[in-house]
Amino acid sequence: MTMRRPAEPGMSVSEIETPALIVDLAALETNIAMLARRVAGNPNGVTLTPHAKAHKCVEIAKLQMAAGASRMCCQNVAEAEAMVDGGIPGVLVSNEIASRAKADRLAALVRRAKIAVCVDHPAQVDVLAAAAQAQGVTLDILIEIDVGMGRCGVAPGEDAVTLARAIAARPGLRFSGLQAYHGAAQHLRKPAERAAAIEHAANLARDTAALLRDAGLPCETIAGAGTGTYENELASGIYTELQCGSYAFMDADYGRNETATPFANALFVLASVISAAAPDRAVCDAGLKAMSLESGLPVVSGADGVTYIKATDEHGQLSLTADAKVKLGDRIRLIPGHCDPTVNLHDWLVAVRGGEVEAVWATARGW
Amino acid sequence: MTMRRPAEPGMSVSEIETPALIVDLAALETNIAMLARRVAGNPNGVTLTPHAKAHKCVEIAKLQMAAGASRMCCQNVAEAEAMVDGGIPGVLVSNEIASRAKADRLAALVRRAKIAVCVDHPAQVDVLAAAAQAQGVTLDILIEIDVGMGRCGVAPGEDAVTLARAIAARPGLRFSGLQAYHGAAQHLRKPAERAAAIEHAANLARDTAALLRDAGLPCETIAGAGTGTYENELASGIYTELQCGSYAFMDADYGRNETATPFANALFVLASVISAAAPDRAVCDAGLKAMSLESGLPVVSGADGVTYIKATDEHGQLSLTADAKVKLGDRIRLIPGHCDPTVNLHDWLVAVRGGEVEAVWATARGW
Repeated sequence: MTMRRPAEPGMSVSEIETPALIVDLAALETNIAMLARRVAGNPNGVTLTPHAKAHKCVEIAKLQMAAGASRMCCQNVAEAEAMVDGGIPGVLVSNEIASRAKADRLAALVRRAKIAVCVDHPAQVDVLAAAAQAQGVTLDILIEIDVGMGRCGVAPGEDAVTLARAIAARPGLRFSGLQAYHGAAQHLRKPAERAAAIEHAANLARDTAALLRDAGLPCETIAGAGTGTYENELASGIYTELQCGSYAFMDADYGRNETATPFANALFVLASVISAAAPDRAVCDAGLKAMSLESGLPVVSGADGVTYIKATDEHGQLSLTADAKVKLGDRIRLIPGHCDPTVNLHDWLVAVRGGEVEAVWATARGW
Repeated sequence: MTMRRPAEPGMSVSEIETPALIVDLAALETNIAMLARRVAGNPNGVTLTPHAKAHKCVEIAKLQMAAGASRMCCQNVAEAEAMVDGGIPGVLVSNEIASRAKADRLAALVRRAKIAVCVDHPAQVDVLAAAAQAQGVTLDILIEIDVGMGRCGVAPGEDAVTLARAIAARPGLRFSGLQAYHGAAQHLRKPAERAAAIEHAANLARDTAALLRDAGLPCETIAGAGTGTYENELASGIYTELQCGSYAFMDADYGRNETATPFANALFVLASVISAAAPDRAVCDAGLKAMSLESGLPVVSGADGVTYIKATDEHGQLSLTADAKVKLGDRIRLIPGHCDPTVNLHDWLVAVRGGEVEAVWATARGW
């Protein structure tokens, strides 16, 4: 990671080098506590496995574990390594691995943490079994089923049973259940659309789990869900583990869903106004290299009359109304369009409380 | 930067850890030589100042300098520091700086390299002059004029003269000329549109330079241009310095311009197929965290019947025709939509020739 830290604890927010990614600790802590409380209160023993792909940060994972999370979710081996190195005792890689090199790295983590990973093809089973056996360890395996995303996952039903039998037959692997994640449902704008998508996903997971049980392969875990739909998965009665990630930070895209979310924006790009050459516009130093734009433009927070209208590599173009109070050198806070790939652009998260830097946390980006 | 390097020299391309950013050295060298030759042959002494924001890589800057570049262009202070640390003797920061802290860092580079920077406001002049005087050095200053982007830049004409007088009056600063960059013109699809945009920009620069000359402030430098329009700036007879960056790598967005470019794609994201659960689709491990998607989806190179249709954080969804030959574990090369912000996602560039890794170069991302 970059050695240049954008701030040090004790600094004022006005001293942070921009552009920087800042985390509002009060909002983060509230978000973490709120979802932990909601999940702890469910009658079916459903657990929360927060997704580390949203923050890539061990310190935030520790806050989530302390609030009752059952383990952390990761999206690749490098994130899992970062979490285990940081002392997280359990990780589910909610994704597929196809190479022996990555399977070896994952198996190497088992001596320090409980590790699970997904498969959707017999060749992945072969690679994982070989790696686990070579190191004398056991990997928990979830079968990913395609419940509506059309991305990874075997077809629900008999294909999953066939694959589960292959897993159960291999030393070094333990069949653990189903990954039934419907990520696209998170961002359907209307609550009824999201509910319908998750009802469909839950039915596919339920039917597949029944077939597996009949085949003598019961599902201990049925995992899925995200910030946009976790109430639906909770209500389904079939999911056992929720993988929400964005709830810790939120972002502008979630803000565009047609539901009042209980979570507050905790993640901001802090930017400086570097050009103000005309009265109706200005330019800040946070552009494509400070934020991911694939889910839309950032929203300016707390500066009336200022709209972020265009990004280029190192420039964010701002449109100003006549009464906007932004001038050269001012700092503004931007709510990024999509939190996960924005975090991935930064080596450091600057944790602030009130006007002061409380901590500077490394991310595992680029690991 | 990340300590984990995705490859080592001498490895086969098939051993590179994915996702990785790879540079085809033969194509890179051809691109660098081709533009150097074109610019060297111009009758007006126009020079090439390749833009380091495209590659953030000292080794590539050295190749460009060895091919005749006059200095390197950078878009922020951190890039300039990386270039000067790497031994590049001259840097133009083609952007504005508004804070004293960054002005101090820039002035500190002057003892090791010739440094120029842009302004579009008297407050930037104040900050730069204070920093230069505090360190007893001289910064070359270009006035950025807005020639059609509506981003940074004072209005062409008298506003520039007023600002030039302010620069000339300040010890520690030397008025050097105009930055007249029209970045938006690079991506206009039709040659006639690009030509018209640059003709307009050149006229504004010419008129402003004439006013400055009449005021006793001649422009030694009139800088601008990019890969999509440099022939237009060359033809204008007014530009003295071309700031092309993307020509070294090219990208899918430039491929969508309606002109046959002389440059070849030299930059690829190397990805592995991690899921192939259905005959008509597959998933690779390069998504939003391996490529910038703001200028469109990547193009699959050299794999017939395979189309990249959607990106999520760690997944790239591929659509397959019935005769596509991609299977689980295969590697594919993707031409990213936009080279600059894609490079910014990676700590390492893996330089390959034929099927072998020749070098692994650090980028200055996150500096």
